[in-house]
Amino acid sequence: MAVFTSVSEDELTRWLQAYAIGTLIEFEGIASGIENTNYFVTTTRGRYVLTLFEKLTRQELAFYLNLMAHYARHGIPAPAPIADHGNRLLGELNGKPAAIVTRLSGKSIMQPAAAHCAAAGAMLGQMHLAGQSFHMQLENPRGPRWWRATAPLLRPFLDQAQRELVESELAFQASRRLDRLPRGVIHADLFRDNVLFNAGEIGGVFDFYFAGNDVLLFDLAVCANDWCVDDAGEIDAERAQALLAAYHRLRPLVAEEHAAWPLMLRAAALRFWLSRMYDLHVPRAGEIIHPHDPHRFRRILELRRANTGPPWIG
Amino acid sequence: MAVFTSVSEDELTRWLQAYAIGTLIEFEGIASGIENTNYFVTTTRGRYVLTLFEKLTRQELAFYLNLMAHYARHGIPAPAPIADHGNRLLGELNGKPAAIVTRLSGKSIMQPAAAHCAAAGAMLGQMHLAGQSFHMQLENPRGPRWWRATAPLLRPFLDQAQRELVESELAFQASRRLDRLPRGVIHADLFRDNVLFNAGEIGGVFDFYFAGNDVLLFDLAVCANDWCVDDAGEIDAERAQALLAAYHRLRPLVAEEHAAWPLMLRAAALRFWLSRMYDLHVPRAGEIIHPHDPHRFRRILELRRANTGPPWIG
Repeated sequence: MAVFTSVSEDELTRWLQAYAIGTLIEFEGIASGIENTNYFVTTTRGRYVLTLFEKLTRQELAFYLNLMAHYARHGIPAPAPIADHGNRLLGELNGKPAAIVTRLSGKSIMQPAAAHCAAAGAMLGQMHLAGQSFHMQLENPRGPRWWRATAPLLRPFLDQAQRELVESELAFQASRRLDRLPRGVIHADLFRDNVLFNAGEIGGVFDFYFAGNDVLLFDLAVCANDWCVDDAGEIDAERAQALLAAYHRLRPLVAEEHAAWPLMLRAAALRFWLSRMYDLHVPRAGEIIHPHDPHRFRRILELRRANTGPPWIG
Repeated sequence: MAVFTSVSEDELTRWLQAYAIGTLIEFEGIASGIENTNYFVTTTRGRYVLTLFEKLTRQELAFYLNLMAHYARHGIPAPAPIADHGNRLLGELNGKPAAIVTRLSGKSIMQPAAAHCAAAGAMLGQMHLAGQSFHMQLENPRGPRWWRATAPLLRPFLDQAQRELVESELAFQASRRLDRLPRGVIHADLFRDNVLFNAGEIGGVFDFYFAGNDVLLFDLAVCANDWCVDDAGEIDAERAQALLAAYHRLRPLVAEEHAAWPLMLRAAALRFWLSRMYDLHVPRAGEIIHPHDPHRFRRILELRRANTGPPWIG
């Protein structure tokens, strides 16, 4: 159970009076929260998710909530934070920063076909285009700076081969200049379970709490390593082609991005290998994590490093 | 047919590329437009309404579109204008200012029970509260200034009794000071046909193109004269009570508003009597209007003037 801060019916009823979304019908805690406390909330107006933020700073929350509101304003099916009567997206409930957002509908598709990958690519393209007019800044919280800070914390838990792989990949990534790659706001975690489908179309995109400013192509590589791989972790050419082509139609990839694609697939693999090892080996107070097995992303990293095929697919 | 500016499939497909709402599936003109050209548009993302504005100025449109976006941000079920990649709510299509907004669902209820009136009152209360943090200004385009400017244009078409009624009511309204009544953004036209219900709850509020800054109580009087009247135009006490009580729970009415209620009911009746006579007698180029019969609001005005009951209901 991951309701870190409990909320009573009276407290929620009173809190909702600062919003224009009707009166409370019912609510229930969501057990799957990792860092935050989440409730499903139903009012006379509709279905929402209430989040009490346990860890994120106000600066981070301002970025995330305004980004979600920006996407919603552009018609991206992101959770829309509801503004209170004072026009604030971030409130406070039981001493915690809190926000209420619209609840999305649909189902994640864990065995995506090429058409689903195309839908994900198009959605990412739309998000990157819409993100161009979002002017707040937050460095990707799991970007290269975080990799370099985290690797030393993991050393005690790694065997020799793992250490060498981390060091070698960090050195390789640091040796490549990325200055000429287009940058912008990225979701940075658009795995299959953060996308909801309704009748074959994407009806929801969520979990923006790792978003930040970084290389746009990195976002696409995160997707490819999750949506377009076989059980062994190898890229499935047809699905990857579908993802990239759909994205490219919206935001045409430039020559530097073609060249950087193998590098980005490695970077995206490294990022999740590191964070999964971090979640496994470095538990933090006040977080309940059921860590994913890091091994899969070690395997994906090795496969991407070994790739000697053409740098670009299709 | 009121598609003043036609749009081809190719033109719309191209235009939608500036937005993040997927690709065109189908679209069709809406015949009921009076001043603007409207199309229903279905994309891979959802259902929208495209409007090409034939008359409104850019200043008026900035107010209306930002107001609708503001309400949507607050969870009010208003049509949400979609921002383009440059974050603009107002675009241009075939030489006309144009915007695309989300399409609402639900049905108007033309024979409202007290519960529907309560829902309308609560919605108006929510809108007035949410409107407090909207900081653009536009004078109510059909407010007292418009009444005074319009009455002389109607004189040639009125008989003696009508002229006297207009003059008498204008003089009465002008003699009352409204300085102490709370002001804000009002919808100003929240008739039954501008509200959509889904399963007894309001699922949509639309037609914001008469909104502006004015006395909040005027908005409630416009509602009461439409939602809470019998066939003869008399106020139905039960429905009016339901409307007012639901509103009052959200934004408690102050003593000055209690006292001004009969005045406001007369003002709201005058406004629609004048505008319906104007639509009937003073046709404007480029507008296709099927004028409502002005007589009903003359009758309502006479009834409100004759009301000698208690100034406040309930």
